[in-house]
Amino acid sequence: MMRENRMPSKTKKKKIIAVLRIGHRLVRDDRVTTHAALVSRAFGADRIFMTGIDQSVKETVAAVGRRWGGDFSVEIIDDWKAVARAWKKSGGKIAHLTMYGLNVDDIADKMRDDGSDLLIIIGAEKVPREAYEMADYNVSVGSQPHSEIAALAILLDRLHGGRQLKKEFAGGRMKVVPTERGKKVVATVSASEEEGENDDGDSSSNL
Amino acid sequence: MMRENRMPSKTKKKKIIAVLRIGHRLVRDDRVTTHAALVSRAFGADRIFMTGIDQSVKETVAAVGRRWGGDFSVEIIDDWKAVARAWKKSGGKIAHLTMYGLNVDDIADKMRDDGSDLLIIIGAEKVPREAYEMADYNVSVGSQPHSEIAALAILLDRLHGGRQLKKEFAGGRMKVVPTERGKKVVATVSASEEEGENDDGDSSSNL
Repeated sequence: MMRENRMPSKTKKKKIIAVLRIGHRLVRDDRVTTHAALVSRAFGADRIFMTGIDQSVKETVAAVGRRWGGDFSVEIIDDWKAVARAWKKSGGKIAHLTMYGLNVDDIADKMRDDGSDLLIIIGAEKVPREAYEMADYNVSVGSQPHSEIAALAILLDRLHGGRQLKKEFAGGRMKVVPTERGKKVVATVSASEEEGENDDGDSSSNL
Repeated sequence: MMRENRMPSKTKKKKIIAVLRIGHRLVRDDRVTTHAALVSRAFGADRIFMTGIDQSVKETVAAVGRRWGGDFSVEIIDDWKAVARAWKKSGGKIAHLTMYGLNVDDIADKMRDDGSDLLIIIGAEKVPREAYEMADYNVSVGSQPHSEIAALAILLDRLHGGRQLKKEFAGGRMKVVPTERGKKVVATVSASEEEGENDDGDSSSNL
């Protein structure tokens, strides 16, 4: 599949959903950052923009893509406001996940009906006031403190009406065959079937 | 509210849901561990059992409870298999979140109809084969690698039919009033209303 332009375009048909993660506190955030990227991919976002991450996070996510398919990408950026402004200028909308926003289940229908490309802002730390102001939708996934990873998963789930959990990812080397007990993985390239400890070797991926 | 017994009992009415998190890789896992506990709480589980965590994680979650309500608890354990065996012996069921299991949307109805108390096993790392074998339900949230935090959120969401996102937590000092822009927090004790930077002061809680 062709790599699409980073910014939304008014002419294309498919609604693009991207995630923008603000802030990263160096090494101790690496696993949380990797989770945010892998959730974006697994729940049907097209790419994630991240500030100040280690190159290894991008590599981990790329390795998952080679193995399990799809064309999700990680874009390392310097200036999140410039990205958000360019997104809006190109006609895209912005959602910001915050426990103070409107309940996701009260605005998901409206967001789903909105055909504009969508940039979802999540924060690794206290989010600057500008994010609240730039957002077309300030969305809460419950009004309790929890996790930007869980919030992102629920918002993407609602936006896709749950269908992303059965989506096939094209172009990978293997896929899972859901099974009641144990692990069943099929190689999609050689069409040979393997069974057993076919872990993808990534610590964030045992789910 | 009275503190309930750790293990399920066949006589009580309310279905208890607990989470068991296996494995923790010291300091670098602290934030992921805190996310797992806060998601368990926010999405309506009653407690989480965790192995080998830092006491500070337990303290962080307790502080969230004092501020935002509810009676969720963190139990630090040594031997996860003993906890799982005792759970089953008391009549509870076990679910294990794994990307290799049956799709959550194919078995959530069955799990919801099952009135037994439920222990949900999530892994911070490669999960021992025993977890697959002890589980009554091996559940996948999609068949792509992502995050045990996201998977836990989606499973709890399905088990509660989405209702947990509007649940009120009793006994806290404050609650959020969902709002289109900015932050609106009401003190539930003094009934005075504050507006502005009422952050709960926890880094994992900006959602």
